[in-house]
Amino acid sequence: MAAKKDLDYFFYPDSLAVVGASNNPYKAGYQIVKNMLDYGYQGRVYPVNPQEDQILGLTCYPSLQSIPETIELVIIAVPSSHVLGVMQQAAARGDVKAAVVVAAGFAETKEPELVALEKEVVAVARSAGIRVFGPNCVGVMNTRNMLDTTIEPPVAKTQGGVSIITQSGAMGGSLLLFMEEQPAPLGYAKWAHVGNMSDVDVLEILEYYGQDADTKVVAMYMEGLRDGRKFIEIAQKITAVKPVIILKVGRSDIGSKATASHTGALAGSDLVYDAAFEKCGVTRVSYLEELTTTAKAFAMLPLPQGENVCVLTEAGGPGIVAVDELGFAKHAKLAHISEEGKRKFKECLPPMAMICHPDGYLDITAAAMTEHHLDALKIALEEPEVDSIILITVPPTFLPPVELAQNLLPVLKNAAKPVFVCFLAGKWVEEARALLEQNGIPTFKTPSDAVRVLDKMIERKKYLKKLAERKEGVSNA
Amino acid sequence: MAAKKDLDYFFYPDSLAVVGASNNPYKAGYQIVKNMLDYGYQGRVYPVNPQEDQILGLTCYPSLQSIPETIELVIIAVPSSHVLGVMQQAAARGDVKAAVVVAAGFAETKEPELVALEKEVVAVARSAGIRVFGPNCVGVMNTRNMLDTTIEPPVAKTQGGVSIITQSGAMGGSLLLFMEEQPAPLGYAKWAHVGNMSDVDVLEILEYYGQDADTKVVAMYMEGLRDGRKFIEIAQKITAVKPVIILKVGRSDIGSKATASHTGALAGSDLVYDAAFEKCGVTRVSYLEELTTTAKAFAMLPLPQGENVCVLTEAGGPGIVAVDELGFAKHAKLAHISEEGKRKFKECLPPMAMICHPDGYLDITAAAMTEHHLDALKIALEEPEVDSIILITVPPTFLPPVELAQNLLPVLKNAAKPVFVCFLAGKWVEEARALLEQNGIPTFKTPSDAVRVLDKMIERKKYLKKLAERKEGVSNA
Repeated sequence: MAAKKDLDYFFYPDSLAVVGASNNPYKAGYQIVKNMLDYGYQGRVYPVNPQEDQILGLTCYPSLQSIPETIELVIIAVPSSHVLGVMQQAAARGDVKAAVVVAAGFAETKEPELVALEKEVVAVARSAGIRVFGPNCVGVMNTRNMLDTTIEPPVAKTQGGVSIITQSGAMGGSLLLFMEEQPAPLGYAKWAHVGNMSDVDVLEILEYYGQDADTKVVAMYMEGLRDGRKFIEIAQKITAVKPVIILKVGRSDIGSKATASHTGALAGSDLVYDAAFEKCGVTRVSYLEELTTTAKAFAMLPLPQGENVCVLTEAGGPGIVAVDELGFAKHAKLAHISEEGKRKFKECLPPMAMICHPDGYLDITAAAMTEHHLDALKIALEEPEVDSIILITVPPTFLPPVELAQNLLPVLKNAAKPVFVCFLAGKWVEEARALLEQNGIPTFKTPSDAVRVLDKMIERKKYLKKLAERKEGVSNA
Repeated sequence: MAAKKDLDYFFYPDSLAVVGASNNPYKAGYQIVKNMLDYGYQGRVYPVNPQEDQILGLTCYPSLQSIPETIELVIIAVPSSHVLGVMQQAAARGDVKAAVVVAAGFAETKEPELVALEKEVVAVARSAGIRVFGPNCVGVMNTRNMLDTTIEPPVAKTQGGVSIITQSGAMGGSLLLFMEEQPAPLGYAKWAHVGNMSDVDVLEILEYYGQDADTKVVAMYMEGLRDGRKFIEIAQKITAVKPVIILKVGRSDIGSKATASHTGALAGSDLVYDAAFEKCGVTRVSYLEELTTTAKAFAMLPLPQGENVCVLTEAGGPGIVAVDELGFAKHAKLAHISEEGKRKFKECLPPMAMICHPDGYLDITAAAMTEHHLDALKIALEEPEVDSIILITVPPTFLPPVELAQNLLPVLKNAAKPVFVCFLAGKWVEEARALLEQNGIPTFKTPSDAVRVLDKMIERKKYLKKLAERKEGVSNA
């Protein structure tokens, strides 16, 4: 690794100390050390606790000073009243570059003496060149070196291109668990929870992810910001290169109030956030499952070139659900199918198939076998006015889903247009969905999900087009 | 069984014939016979096919006439061009009371000769006192006698109180699969798909479910109705006794058009449906997953007495998500907690706990152990102004979810108020959620889901209260 930047010491420390490490499984200081061992963190770990000789098989040190090796990151897992003392020791060492302060009981309480205490802790850190995550945070995860400073529920460290910023440890953890629960686990690169943001704030993380080569998609749970202007400036730079998807709460008045008392950040009117997100090309979602599905689609599918979608369905009901949802889409709409295309569809589909009622909608019927699915998909992909395809099937008992998936796979892999595949039949199609996702083809649980995600992708494409036009305008001027 | 009513012959036939039975696994006539054997249907099964001697080990008959025993239900799984002949044979027998016509290629094509053919088939049936499901349908399932005439993807026949009517086989099948996928499978009683509704229509099924003792909750996927007035009349009678939850598509204009061409039913303006549902106490939902979750809650929880909800959360973010969603609820709102209650919460919760900021919202924090969850739940249940509780937890690594669930179980089981439990951590809480659901306590995947379902339950409670008041008004007059 080249010269480390500030935040690199959080994500790629060569060595770390856990102050408040413990042999008591009910303490955070036990779980953090355990994570490092269980996940196989690739750096050195030094537990610190004056009462113990060993913790989980590692030599335990009585104090930070007593560790004879270089320490880059200190995780401070002691009660709030002891944090200042530990930070002073860390500062005195001279080698520490980063600190994660886990304890709550600081500025978030709004008690004047605790607000002051937090400021003092940060002042001590700054004087020694130590950057701080927290207090009141769980810290970082990185699947490249198996680092995990958190006490989040256990989740497999599957490598992938999604990086996460969260203003709630629980929401960030739940997002990972939702990602893990996909038919094939959706991997991630980095994860960060910065709590009270006494020093490092979400914007700095955002900027860091923007420059991080491992991060292809940024996913964020947001409660509120302190500096909207700076956010827009940073986000704008990143969204030009990679998608930034944000689940922002505080959409309702009462939610906005509750948000303010949780993070202490200014919640602000939701309309202001909406406008800001639109301005800087951020993709906004409303629910945790939607954040998961949207991140998956952005990570795995090419963007559609335009707003015209062809709905191919083996089952009438779910097809109509898709069309119904398209009626609420901001951008997506049914594509026009050429006369030539209609003729081709008619030639290869079962006689009952409904072709283009309405235009762009094809019900290939429950009589459709594998080859009908395949032919219809190929024809739709070749249609000049089709930018994306929603492919829905509820394979009946005589159409084994895995066989169908295997046959679709080569076409899906080579498709230049995004295809949103919905195998809609629970356990019956689990293996088929897993097969597709393991091979890089995302699948969706319902046609409504697929339409909503597609709409977000078109929105991003339009944003990027506008950016390109503006650039061209400037260079032509 | 007492004297059978018309529809009983579909759901409780003592014997049935499958015309078009086959040894070819790709034919519907194979799958239907296989279902009867695999699921252990409790009546007699007679396959009919002049080309075969045996099908799946059962004696096969060359024609309906040649079956020497009484036949109550005939499943007609031959191409549309052969259906009329089969129906004539069924009529000639004199014992057949019910027929499921599987084939498509009738009135739904809107071809005049096929519309006429459908009418003729029904006329022959009527002349012999045979009631008809279909054409263009998959028929019925019944978990009481393990009957399954369909070619839907396989799903366990778990007995339960939800009965399903669907205007799309695929949507009805998917609903069952979503129900099966719950942490503990959500069981069902009956299931019906009536296709073109040439004779038996959805309203007759609805009425039948209304009188069915096994049916506690009716769940329906609806595309459109022919007789709105009659629907209101029937639904009104049923909703007074049991919940009727309907997923109605055609919410958008384009969706409404697609609907019309699928079922051939008049789709009509969505506002008209909305008004009709409100008038007759139907619970409307918009998505398949919402239909599943709402049916689960209605089947497993008591109705809340009023609109005041207490949100108890172990994790700030998900708690705020719940409060945020409450801001969009039509009925649900945060409850007022008494001074006495606040004092009790303060006494038993960790020092960092946020009590009633805002009122009715309690963040018991990630420091909360099992006893904190338990004490908080008990205090909330005793609060006079609390009608329901949303209990959210993202158990950190040191709080084993199953242990937590086991400790909560006795309190949840005895709770007179509905508690919406969200264990929000994927695989990490799967076993805990299964344990709760196996013991009759529903769990929810996200706080937003819980709030939306709760809001529907309050809506129903209000409807029932209004009904009761009106009745009282009448009896006092």
